[in-house]
Amino acid sequence: MSNASIYAVGLDANAANYEALTPLNFVERTAAIYPELPAVVYNDVRRNWGETFARMRQLGSALSKRGIGKDDTVSIIAANIPEMFEAHFGVPMAGAVLNTINTRLDAEAISFILNHAEAKAVLVDPEFSDVVDTAIKMTGRRDEILTIDILDASFEGGRQIGSMTYDDLLAEGDADFDFVMPDSEWDAISLNYTSGTTGDPKGVVYHHRGATLNALSNIVTWGMGHHSRYLWTLPMFHCNGWCFPWTIAANAGVCVCLRAVRAEPIYQLIRDEKVTHFCGAPIVLNMLANAPDELKDFSHEVKVMTAGASPPAAVIENMESMGVEVTHVYGLTETYGPSVVCAWKGAWDVKPAEDKAKLKARQGVKNLALSGLMVADPDTHEPCPADGETMGEIFMRGNNVMKGYLKNPSATDKSFKGGWFASGDLGVMHPDGYVELKDRSKDIIISGGENISSVEVEDVLYKHPAVMEAAVVAKPDEKWGETPCAFVTLKPGKDVTAKDIIAHCRDNMAHFKAPKTVIFGDLPKTSTGKVQKFVLRDRARSETA
Amino acid sequence: MSNASIYAVGLDANAANYEALTPLNFVERTAAIYPELPAVVYNDVRRNWGETFARMRQLGSALSKRGIGKDDTVSIIAANIPEMFEAHFGVPMAGAVLNTINTRLDAEAISFILNHAEAKAVLVDPEFSDVVDTAIKMTGRRDEILTIDILDASFEGGRQIGSMTYDDLLAEGDADFDFVMPDSEWDAISLNYTSGTTGDPKGVVYHHRGATLNALSNIVTWGMGHHSRYLWTLPMFHCNGWCFPWTIAANAGVCVCLRAVRAEPIYQLIRDEKVTHFCGAPIVLNMLANAPDELKDFSHEVKVMTAGASPPAAVIENMESMGVEVTHVYGLTETYGPSVVCAWKGAWDVKPAEDKAKLKARQGVKNLALSGLMVADPDTHEPCPADGETMGEIFMRGNNVMKGYLKNPSATDKSFKGGWFASGDLGVMHPDGYVELKDRSKDIIISGGENISSVEVEDVLYKHPAVMEAAVVAKPDEKWGETPCAFVTLKPGKDVTAKDIIAHCRDNMAHFKAPKTVIFGDLPKTSTGKVQKFVLRDRARSETA
Repeated sequence: MSNASIYAVGLDANAANYEALTPLNFVERTAAIYPELPAVVYNDVRRNWGETFARMRQLGSALSKRGIGKDDTVSIIAANIPEMFEAHFGVPMAGAVLNTINTRLDAEAISFILNHAEAKAVLVDPEFSDVVDTAIKMTGRRDEILTIDILDASFEGGRQIGSMTYDDLLAEGDADFDFVMPDSEWDAISLNYTSGTTGDPKGVVYHHRGATLNALSNIVTWGMGHHSRYLWTLPMFHCNGWCFPWTIAANAGVCVCLRAVRAEPIYQLIRDEKVTHFCGAPIVLNMLANAPDELKDFSHEVKVMTAGASPPAAVIENMESMGVEVTHVYGLTETYGPSVVCAWKGAWDVKPAEDKAKLKARQGVKNLALSGLMVADPDTHEPCPADGETMGEIFMRGNNVMKGYLKNPSATDKSFKGGWFASGDLGVMHPDGYVELKDRSKDIIISGGENISSVEVEDVLYKHPAVMEAAVVAKPDEKWGETPCAFVTLKPGKDVTAKDIIAHCRDNMAHFKAPKTVIFGDLPKTSTGKVQKFVLRDRARSETA
Repeated sequence: MSNASIYAVGLDANAANYEALTPLNFVERTAAIYPELPAVVYNDVRRNWGETFARMRQLGSALSKRGIGKDDTVSIIAANIPEMFEAHFGVPMAGAVLNTINTRLDAEAISFILNHAEAKAVLVDPEFSDVVDTAIKMTGRRDEILTIDILDASFEGGRQIGSMTYDDLLAEGDADFDFVMPDSEWDAISLNYTSGTTGDPKGVVYHHRGATLNALSNIVTWGMGHHSRYLWTLPMFHCNGWCFPWTIAANAGVCVCLRAVRAEPIYQLIRDEKVTHFCGAPIVLNMLANAPDELKDFSHEVKVMTAGASPPAAVIENMESMGVEVTHVYGLTETYGPSVVCAWKGAWDVKPAEDKAKLKARQGVKNLALSGLMVADPDTHEPCPADGETMGEIFMRGNNVMKGYLKNPSATDKSFKGGWFASGDLGVMHPDGYVELKDRSKDIIISGGENISSVEVEDVLYKHPAVMEAAVVAKPDEKWGETPCAFVTLKPGKDVTAKDIIAHCRDNMAHFKAPKTVIFGDLPKTSTGKVQKFVLRDRARSETA
């Protein structure tokens, strides 16, 4: 700011008119105003915001007393239980950084993360005690990592592997703890490792500013009223549950916790806890849509946010016929979860169902926290024409783009190109400014010199009435280079042949795009419902068509 | 940030992962996604977001071309017409600072502001052409100030006093203007002069960061869904309409504009334009409540936000019986308008109407953008006990506290004490953390050594069935020092005596607090509906009781 300016009237930072943005303010405010309102529901556990805030402060205080502070890492490996929610605040309250670990990882991957993150402590859900125990042994730092067992009265099995329980730790803490506010809103708040199908996982660092702004953006994106009742179907270890722990604190809502993502408890909680919002991969919606009708026993309005792949039209229609409004979003771990939303327009309501599904399958426009979104040439950054045809790489910029990769400056530099974050995803820009994802670079199938989008083939497969799930990958081919290979799960009781499927594809798209091979069976998935295409590629390679 | 930290992975500011917060992003995003949705409605004028955004960019571009840029002041004196809304974006798009001037000011005050703000240009609504013409002459800078006449086909009267019209100016601008983004989110965006009852008005500077965060906070505070239909009853010159121009852009809503705040057009617009939200001083609610029933012809839900004084219980009840939900807020020009909200709790719904009104009359808790709110000793900053009894000064801190007073470091320093903004208002903190305003320091009446809150006396007066409006000030008294003097406007057709009023007060409060003098008639008010107590103090002084 130039001193010549007549508007140079500001004071120093940290004066009355400046405060670092942090989600810790959200929970402090909500607990002060609404201490008596419910914060967490999980089986027999019901805690209000006053109690939950006190536990968070106890956690922050206890970690502080044990010497864990600014920029130290505290890892947690847990299902969507109350302690997982508390850690999203309690750990930053100590000034530390929360590292949520994917519960489906094997001991080797967990061990890598604990060491790469230089974890000072790890909180362990009993469901994962065996694998974490092995992982900690593998770190070679068993004595250095404070291991805390979370107890769960409603979970049978597991064992204590640590030196104390979570409740013991809380008991060491002070419920009136004057918790650590970030020195800068650019301070790290959490660390999320990408599931990286090749090479070592990368540690994506989030900061307080981005967490705050994306949490608020969630409220605006969904038009959330006060006191939402949010069901935890999306793992909190996945991009910090798309920032929803912080959103629910700002919204003074309720976290309806859930260990196992199955249709029966989900529908029961929607009904009994009057759930208003939940998030989930399309596979979760698929499961809910295909569940027995007698489970679908609720009458209030529910909103679901889904990302990860285009939700099939039939699934959207099924959900919406139940009164569940589907919002399609898109993002990456590097963008705090979804940073792009398929903002729906009232004018589209009157379109035929198929057109609506097509519109809703697009990834959409930037959310309120994102500043820039473009489809451009990966090298020159020249934006592609907004013609819905020209494919380019999707780039983002804004406050909900990660701080960087932990201890990985080369990967960080490679991702940040010319003031943009390079997503690695390919897509097109439609004339109305909506982005549509076509594929990950590596998911493009090149057959006889022609590019085939695996997503496009999958879309056609999903239109077949017997298909419940489908994934398409490249299969090496002597003649064509590659050909599309389809993996298909049929709906219960359905029986069709590979020939039927191929004929259906040829009837609905260019013949060269139709799969040459169809393999039936369950699809291998990550814990977040993403199909593990690298597994399918291996299978396709070994399959003799 | 210490280099020793493993989390020091950030890039430079202005990289892919940092963007200065600015409301300009809101309008750019909304116009890109929803160009076809309505943005502005005013009599025969209907413009969508695409058109409105183009006009804003033309305004920014034309100002730029005329050499108006970073930190230059552009003043506007206008009713709540579309051009006033456009200026909230077009002026900052040139990098300049918007100075909205209270339309009720006299030429001398306007002239003072134009010179103090070093205005480079002024946009003039025809309704105020005479007074502005005089004011500009008084500045002695007539040739230096670019004067622009806004034309309004639906307004009769006024005259052109400038060198060109607003439409001529727009015609000079480029609708594709690559507008100026703030170098820093701490850059000034607007300048609002306090109405200061004594001395020269002070220029309160807002910055892009505060405007952005308070605009978002408005959405969360009200739980606003998408596409709100916002009626402009609150003047945009008043704290930039409490930041609602920027809120409506973020929300992709509609600005329903209105020149004259009268019951008939308000009810007509609520009905015809399906208004969902509006703001206004209690006097506006009072007017609406007391309007003929046949005007109250709408059936959808409406929300109103009110500030400035406790809304009388009868008015709240009347509004809510029509389906208008009243939210009581509190703030100052220095806090971007309301920064405190009487957050309502569902548990209060079942309380008797009188208890509800008492709860709703409290000013409340910090809004989402405010970080701290306390009632404390004005000198030591020692917080008062939260007993609902102990009076202290109200202090705030956070990102929605002004940048400072323009060219007034001594006033700025005086307002910012020890990391807090001193509001100059007196209040109490209730045990549940809600603040209740008792009085401005100068509105306390000291009678026989006892403090009497004029607000408390007014509350009792409002309970009298014949009283429409009431204001109480101190009247000098030889014996008591001061005594309470009540100014009362009766409801139409009501006829009571001063004795009746005094008796009513003595029946409902400590006798020493009852007014000794009652004067009937209209109350003098500022344009924002605030009673001009300094006028009443003069009258009380000259009155021989």
